[in-house]
Formats: sequence, C-alpha cells, structure tokens
Amino acid sequence: MSGIEQNDGIRTEIIGDGSAGTFDYRKYPAYPKPKLSDRTWPDQEITRAPVWASVDLRDGNQALIEPMTVQQKMVFFELLVDIGFKEIEIGFPAASQIDYDFTRRLIEEDLIPQDVTVQVLVQAREELIERTYESLQGVHRAIVHVYNSTSTVQRRDVFRMDQAGIRDLAVQGATWVQEYAKRYPDTDWRFQYSPESFTGTELDYAIDVCNAVLEVWQPRPENPVIINLPATVEMTTPNVFADQIEIVHRQLHHRDAVVLSVHTHNDRGTGIAASELAVMAGADRVEGTLLGNGERTGNMDILTMAMNLYSRGVDPELDLADMARIQKVYEYCNQLPVHPRHPYIGELVYTSFSGSHQDAIRKCMSARKPGDLWDVAYIPIDPTDLGRNYEAVIRVNSQSGKGGVAWLLERETGYNLPRELQPLFSQHVQKEAERTAKEVRADWIVTAFEQEYMARTPLRLGDYRLSSTEAGDDQLSADVHMDGQQQRWVGKGDGPVDAWTSALAQHVGFVVEVDDYAEHTLGTGSDARAVAYVKLKTGERTWWGVGTGGDIARAALDAVSAAVNRELAARAAEAQVA
Amino acid sequence: MSGIEQNDGIRTEIIGDGSAGTFDYRKYPAYPKPKLSDRTWPDQEITRAPVWASVDLRDGNQALIEPMTVQQKMVFFELLVDIGFKEIEIGFPAASQIDYDFTRRLIEEDLIPQDVTVQVLVQAREELIERTYESLQGVHRAIVHVYNSTSTVQRRDVFRMDQAGIRDLAVQGATWVQEYAKRYPDTDWRFQYSPESFTGTELDYAIDVCNAVLEVWQPRPENPVIINLPATVEMTTPNVFADQIEIVHRQLHHRDAVVLSVHTHNDRGTGIAASELAVMAGADRVEGTLLGNGERTGNMDILTMAMNLYSRGVDPELDLADMARIQKVYEYCNQLPVHPRHPYIGELVYTSFSGSHQDAIRKCMSARKPGDLWDVAYIPIDPTDLGRNYEAVIRVNSQSGKGGVAWLLERETGYNLPRELQPLFSQHVQKEAERTAKEVRADWIVTAFEQEYMARTPLRLGDYRLSSTEAGDDQLSADVHMDGQQQRWVGKGDGPVDAWTSALAQHVGFVVEVDDYAEHTLGTGSDARAVAYVKLKTGERTWWGVGTGGDIARAALDAVSAAVNRELAARAAEAQVA
Repeated sequence: MSGIEQNDGIRTEIIGDGSAGTFDYRKYPAYPKPKLSDRTWPDQEITRAPVWASVDLRDGNQALIEPMTVQQKMVFFELLVDIGFKEIEIGFPAASQIDYDFTRRLIEEDLIPQDVTVQVLVQAREELIERTYESLQGVHRAIVHVYNSTSTVQRRDVFRMDQAGIRDLAVQGATWVQEYAKRYPDTDWRFQYSPESFTGTELDYAIDVCNAVLEVWQPRPENPVIINLPATVEMTTPNVFADQIEIVHRQLHHRDAVVLSVHTHNDRGTGIAASELAVMAGADRVEGTLLGNGERTGNMDILTMAMNLYSRGVDPELDLADMARIQKVYEYCNQLPVHPRHPYIGELVYTSFSGSHQDAIRKCMSARKPGDLWDVAYIPIDPTDLGRNYEAVIRVNSQSGKGGVAWLLERETGYNLPRELQPLFSQHVQKEAERTAKEVRADWIVTAFEQEYMARTPLRLGDYRLSSTEAGDDQLSADVHMDGQQQRWVGKGDGPVDAWTSALAQHVGFVVEVDDYAEHTLGTGSDARAVAYVKLKTGERTWWGVGTGGDIARAALDAVSAAVNRELAARAAEAQVA
Repeated sequence: MSGIEQNDGIRTEIIGDGSAGTFDYRKYPAYPKPKLSDRTWPDQEITRAPVWASVDLRDGNQALIEPMTVQQKMVFFELLVDIGFKEIEIGFPAASQIDYDFTRRLIEEDLIPQDVTVQVLVQAREELIERTYESLQGVHRAIVHVYNSTSTVQRRDVFRMDQAGIRDLAVQGATWVQEYAKRYPDTDWRFQYSPESFTGTELDYAIDVCNAVLEVWQPRPENPVIINLPATVEMTTPNVFADQIEIVHRQLHHRDAVVLSVHTHNDRGTGIAASELAVMAGADRVEGTLLGNGERTGNMDILTMAMNLYSRGVDPELDLADMARIQKVYEYCNQLPVHPRHPYIGELVYTSFSGSHQDAIRKCMSARKPGDLWDVAYIPIDPTDLGRNYEAVIRVNSQSGKGGVAWLLERETGYNLPRELQPLFSQHVQKEAERTAKEVRADWIVTAFEQEYMARTPLRLGDYRLSSTEAGDDQLSADVHMDGQQQRWVGKGDGPVDAWTSALAQHVGFVVEVDDYAEHTLGTGSDARAVAYVKLKTGERTWWGVGTGGDIARAALDAVSAAVNRELAARAAEAQVA
C-alpha cells in the first residue's frame, strides 16, 4: 500500500454547536394535501370501539431511557390482559435479546390467554423473519408484523432505492413471512404489513405497495390480514390524515379481507384526534399505548381515546376503572411521570380552583337524581367511575369562591352552611389565602371555622335546667362559665333559645335577638348529632354563631353563646384600641 | 321561637365514598352533532397564523394549586411580551385582589408596550364591571371581556333561568360594559363577549345570544368586537367543533366587524386539533396558554399550535426560539412540570433510541446540503431552531443499533468508523447494554472503543526510523516495546505500513496482512491529527485496529499494532483455557 486515504467527510454539521436562535419557518416545506372532494368521514360518528392493539411493549420499550426488563414487561403484559386488550405487540424478538427471551417465556409458561393474540414486529429481512418465527415456536396464535419504510426521504437518503426497489422489498418480505409461517403449521398465523413512514410517502405509491403485499398474501374474509398505516411522524393536521385513510379505504384491494389499522404519533399534539378521525374515515383498528408513551412525543394514547368513547356513551371495550393501577404500572415500567393535566388520569383533571366553577359543580351535583345521565358543569365524567373520589374536585385557594369553601367544610364536618353564611366565611378564608399565596387546606378551613363561629370563651353554657309549660312559658336556669367564674343566670321565654337570649340580655349589657337560624342533623340514626346556625343581633351588629350537640336544644343554645362571644370579643378589641 | 327546624338536605352523594369500580359508559349521553352538509373547512389549509391571545395570567392562574403572586405574574407577562403576544388576558381584577394589584402596577409603572393590548375578564354583573373599569383607569388600550354561562346544564341547575333570561343577562352585561366605558374616554376600549360553556349550549341559541350582544354593541369594521366561543369543557371530536364554528361564522351578524375567537380545552386530549380545525372553519383568533396550562386538563397549547404552523413553513408570528427560557418561566410561575414527551419542548422529543431510527437520521443528516429544506426522517423540525443541539438526539441503550453508537462515538471523538466496523462495535455495546439494562453513556462508549480497538499492550511501537526509496523499497527500523522489554525490529515493504507488517510477521508468529483500511483527519489546519482504521488478517481471523497520531503514518502503524494486540490477547486467553 503506497498511500493513506484521507476521508474528509467528518459531518460536523450533524453535531451542531449548541447555540440558540436559528428560528426560521422558511426552511420547512408545506405538506402535500391529497385531493378528496367527496369525503364522507366528517359526517360519521364513532358508535363502537375500534380493535385496540397495544404497542406498549414494543414501541414504548424502544423509546425509553432504560428499556424494560423481562420482569417489567411481564408486569405490563399482565395489566394489558386485565384491561382487556386482545391484540398486544410484545416486541421485536429478532432485534432484541430481551424481547426474544420475553416472547419465549410467555409461550413456555403458557401466559397468553386463549383470546389474546400476541404480535411481533420484524423488518422485511429474511434472517430476521426466520429468527422471529423461531421466537414464536409453540404459540397458539400470533400476528407477524412486517414493515419497511416507504417514505420519499428514506428511499432517497437511507435506502438509496427507487419506488420499484422499495416495493420489491415489501413484496419479498411478505413472501418470506408467508413461507416461514408454513414451517409452523400448528400456529394460527396472522399477517400484518406496515408501509413505515406512511405519512411521508406519496399516497398513491403507498397504496400501490400495500396492494402488492396483498397480492402476495391473497387474504380471505374469514382469515383477514392487517394493513397498518403509521403516522410514524405526525406531519399535518388530523383532517388530512383522515382524508388519506378514506382514500386508502376506498382503493385497497381485498378490502373485505383487510383489517385497516392506523398507528398515529403525537409530534403535533394531535395524535388522538388523528386516530379518531381516521376511524370515522374507515379504519377498523388503532395501535397505540397507554398514556401515549413511545418515541419522541409518543404514540397516540389509547387510554384517552377509549375514555373519549366512554364519556359519550360508547362501550370502550376496555376496562379502565382502576386508574391507580394503570398509573402505577406505567410509572414502574416506563420510568416516566404522568403529567398532572393528563386527560382522565392526571392529578388535577377533576379539580376545580375557580369559585364560579366550584359553585356550579356543587349546584349540579345537588340537583342530580339517581339514574340521571351524567350532566355536571365543568366535569366531563364522574371521577368515581375511575376509582377517584370527589376529594380532589374542589380545592381552595385565593381564586376560589364561597362554593368551594362551603363544600370543603361540609365534606370535612358535615356542616351545611346557610346561604347567607357561606360568603361571609369564604371572605375570611380568601383573605387568608391571599395573605399566604398558598392553597388553603381542608383542615385549616375547619379550624378557622371553629375559631370564628364556635368560640366557647369568654362565655360558655354549662349545665342547665329547663322548665317548660304547655302554654310556652319556659324558664331556663343556666350555670354559666364567664371569664373563669361560674354564675347562675335565669331567663324566661318561648322555648329554650328565647329563654337563653333573655337570660343573656340581662347580664351581657347588650341586645341579644335571634334574627335567623337553621339547624340540621349530623349523621343518621340514634347517634345523630345536631348542628345549629344562629344569626344574632347585638344592637348595630349581627353575628353568626354555630353550635353542635347531642340534641337540638344544646346545639342551638351553644350557637347563641358563640355569637355572643364574637360580640364580646369585638368589644374587648375596641376597648383595647380606645 | 317554638321549634327548631331540621334540614335533612345533607348532600352525601357529592362527597362520594372513595371506592373504585363504578365503570359504566351507559350513564353518558351522546353529543348532539349539528347538521352541516356543505361544510368547507376540510378543504382549507392554514396559511397564516391566527391572532394569538394568551390567557396564561388569568385562566392559568385560576387553575393552579398555588396561584401566581404579583411577582410571578410580572415575570410571565414579560415573557409573553418578548415572545410577541399582542393580546394578553391579565386576569379577573374584580374577583381577585392580586389581579387588581397586578393590573394597577402594569398601568402605573407603564409596563404595557404600545402595541400590546391587555384584556381582563369579568362576569355580566354591574358591580364587577364597575370595579373592572376602575382597575383599568389610565390604560391606553384594553379589551373588556364579559361573559355569562349559556349552557343547558347551567341554565337548569345553576342559574335556574330560561333561555330568554340568560340572553337578557348577556344583553345587560354588554350594555353595562358599553356604558361604563364611556366614563373613561381616554382609553381605546375593545369589547369581547363569550357565551361561556358554548359547547354545552344549543348551537342556535348560542348564536342568538351572540347576535343579541352584537345588536347592543353595533360594531363597525374599523372598530371590531370579539366574539369568543369557548369549549369550556371539550365534549366531542374536533371536527364537530369545527362544524359548529363554521355555522357560527356563517350566521353571525356584523361578521365583518367581528373577530371570531375560539378558546378550546383539552379534556379529550384534542384541544389543539379543535383550534386548528376551527381556524380552517373561520375563526380569526385563538385563545390559549403556553404548554396548555389551565383548569383540569388545561387550555389548548399555543406553543404547540404555533410550532405546528412553523414546521410546515407558515410564519407563527411568535418567536419561540428560546425554549429554555419558556420552560423555566412556565415551571417557576405555574409550579408544574413539563412532560418529557411534550411536543417541541419535552426532554425526549428529539431523542431517538431505536437503532433503525438512529441510522436513518444519521444518513439523512449526512445527505443534507446548506439551504436544503428540512427533510430528515423521524425528526420533524431541526432542534437547533429552538436552542437545542443534537446531543440529545441519539441516545444509546440495548434497543439501539449501529447508527446510534457510531454517531455518539463520532460526536465525542470525531472518529468516523468504516461501514464494516460499525456493526461489530455496536454489537459489543449492545451486549453491555443488555447486561446492565441501562442507558449506555457516551463516555462509556469511548472507553469501550479505546479498550477494544486501540490497545497499546502487550505490543507498542516506540520510535522508528524509515528509509524510503523512490522505487518503493522502504525499510522500517522500529523500537518495539513488548511485554515490558524493548526490542529492535526491522521490516521491508512498499511504504511504512507494508514494512511494519513485514517486521511484525517475523516476530509475532502469525500472519499479518492488511485486508482493508481507511484514514481521515481529526480537526482542521496545522494541528490536525489523523485516525486510521485497519482490518488485519492474522490467519483464520481478522481484527480491526485503530490508531491516532500527529501524522498519517504513525496513526496507521498504531492501528496495525492495535489489531495485532487483539490477536495476541485472543491467543493468551486460549492458552489459559487450554
């Protein structure tokens, strides 16, 4: 060898320099929208669930910082089966030892239910197809999913082949898949083909390739094959994808023997919409993942699309009731967080902080009767359907109004405040919330309420004796604890409350008149306690006071005392200022 | 008072019992789809950005566990201005003291640029409208956004009013808004009306209410008003929302004097799609938030929709280049995380773990020429546009193939491996990745490569002297360090490599023949070093070896030595086994 070659092709441009600010929309081409003047999909509605195919164990796994172990795959597989998936892509066994080992374990330990079909992915290459069938030896039924990329950019820059060459690859792959299947006649084989990067492929050509594959497979309605159209990268608005699917739906050969499938991604944040519109446009089957895991922005989220059907009265054909388990498995296996605003499952999606929202929710819930269809402002579905309770629905901060505060108090204590008392108390809470700029917790609200409306100092009613006549002349003889001293106060009136206000008026030095009151029980049965709300006039001012007790009389008397205590506290404060 | 009332209306049903499993789709009604046989929106494409209106400071703030402080609002406002928002809803000053204070501060400290219009929200209630105008005193221009809820459920359960009553509320609110504006003639006022919960309102009735408001305002094209249609709760597929918008677009009075606005939410995960299709259907303006914050699942995400336009060559009319700052402000002010898979901004959205993806990306990037439109498999936009570099694009784990490994090595070292060497090295890496079930870091890859292909023991070439004749008879006299001893080896051949293999063959006891080689420079200019890749036959086996040096000869000789060292190591291992 006489010289040493120089290779100056070091591609510095792919390394990048890490600096910001080359923002320029002009470097991106428009997307070529197919022509379709007589589309029918916008008039369709989805009235039944598509066939769901989970790719969590393949595409999800391919996309994780730390891929799932066999053990994690096992946990996820069990969840998918329990939820009700009937088609589960379990991996790419010819490319990954973990996927191979996992496939063997499912088969050898007989872990695949009879009504579940596992699916494996493989490129259109003979040695990989051969190994794929080896990995599946002994399975009762399986989908062999073969693909090759058909997009313009991959033909040009990756494979450096023309359209005919890439179509030949697909046909060759389909042929190998069919031939190797014959070596394992005891398995019920199903075939699936994907023109990968479908959305980056000329539509006519993609259809041409799919039809060429179908010519090889010659499917029959009683033994259909799957043609799967991936938006490997989401490239356009979802209506354009739907147009594409409707065109394929019309032009595919052997259509009655094809399950038309879509596999959308979420690069533009519209992957769910794309699958929904595609189903209107003729797709029978949707591939995706739970909560949308997958390469880059992820696949479409089957959980959300299924719950979208559910929330409009369509059977989702998946049981998603146990969202807590789904979240746990997702986080354990994918090592990714669930965002607090993730539809249907996020921590905050049934929570309302706005006062007007809280008030409306409360009123709608109150108006609900058993058997009513769900129709509650601001809450699209009943959170109890998914194992969530209402605890999180109403949370209170400085933006919350009376509805939220009242609801939280009621939830914690059973107190159902009179209409007039609600805004008074919530103003108190709101001031505190603005002062601290924090969320106000339920326990704090209860304490604040007790301190403000249920004070038992300086005055407290101890034992009392009531003598009541049929004529309504009642006399109350009360042991009163006032500033640490016990006194005996006596008052007369029409009923105990009237007698007590009369006794108080004689001793406290101001007017004591009941202006309004309400009372209700707490709990049911013989143990039920009572809570009373009294609005008391003390001259110029009025005060609400609240009392609870084992009987309705004691509760009411304590409520009056609490209101008197507020006037006494106000006077004490004024005396200090003066 | 003779008795004590009992209030048995404790609404236990709204408290819930916290148990799971009442999953039943039959409790949800279908959505009433409007009839529209001659829709035109599916044929439209978005060729310019809508007017963007940020509601981050209002709706976002209303929806947070801890609402923003005035300071946080200030930071967020500054970001929104810098990005280029021209309409910014800053809060609900009549309902929140913080919003009131923030509004005053913006005005009094003259912080609102001349080309930015602030917007404030207010219910259709006179005292709130009055206070709203007070909060805005002295502003140069502002949008007063008045709303009332028009939905069936809120009319029935919350307001207990019929259609006429709710329409009267809207008309009354619009009248107040107009009248109070006259008190402040120095401000350029604009009016906005929202039939809140539009998607829960009968379409004809919603149009009727909007037209009644327009009759009050009598807008003119030179001073238009805004009619904003909120999907307060997202209730159906986005195409149905688009149909609704197209119908409103056709039936609204004074259409040439109305800016038609939409405000979509994300309860079904399709809020972005709904806004996109609505713009096709006639909407001029889109309200939303950065990264989709907002009550429950949040508002539509303006960042994603704007980047969707950008990625298809449409000017987004927002400058989103500094994603790092956007994320920082979002997290600081909202106290919410950005999900790793969030479109355009998430940590993982430019990352590829799959081997076939990595390989394709690498080839597409290599084929790119300056000025080419962007067209790279699996990466919808160039991450450097947003201040991201390619570091994160390729990450390697057990699912990664040769492309990713080779790219990472090249990024770290500049080594551009020969085609045949790539899969050999990546198999080595993949084995390690499967063993550890971890992501393989770039520094580990470099170390592994050096240990495997660049070994300098047991044999190392020290100083050498080369005498070269014009006829090509070169002689190499080399100081060789072997097992700690220095020896002088001499070889002849055609060039230094040939002479060195000849010297080696005489001493190591096996064939030493170069089968293939490549070499390229590292860096540029006078400091450039060289790296050489040699495939060496040692009898039955072949080994790749790699060397670097200040000159091309030294690099090549060291590469040969490294390959010889691999054969020596293999022989030593075999001897141990034997």
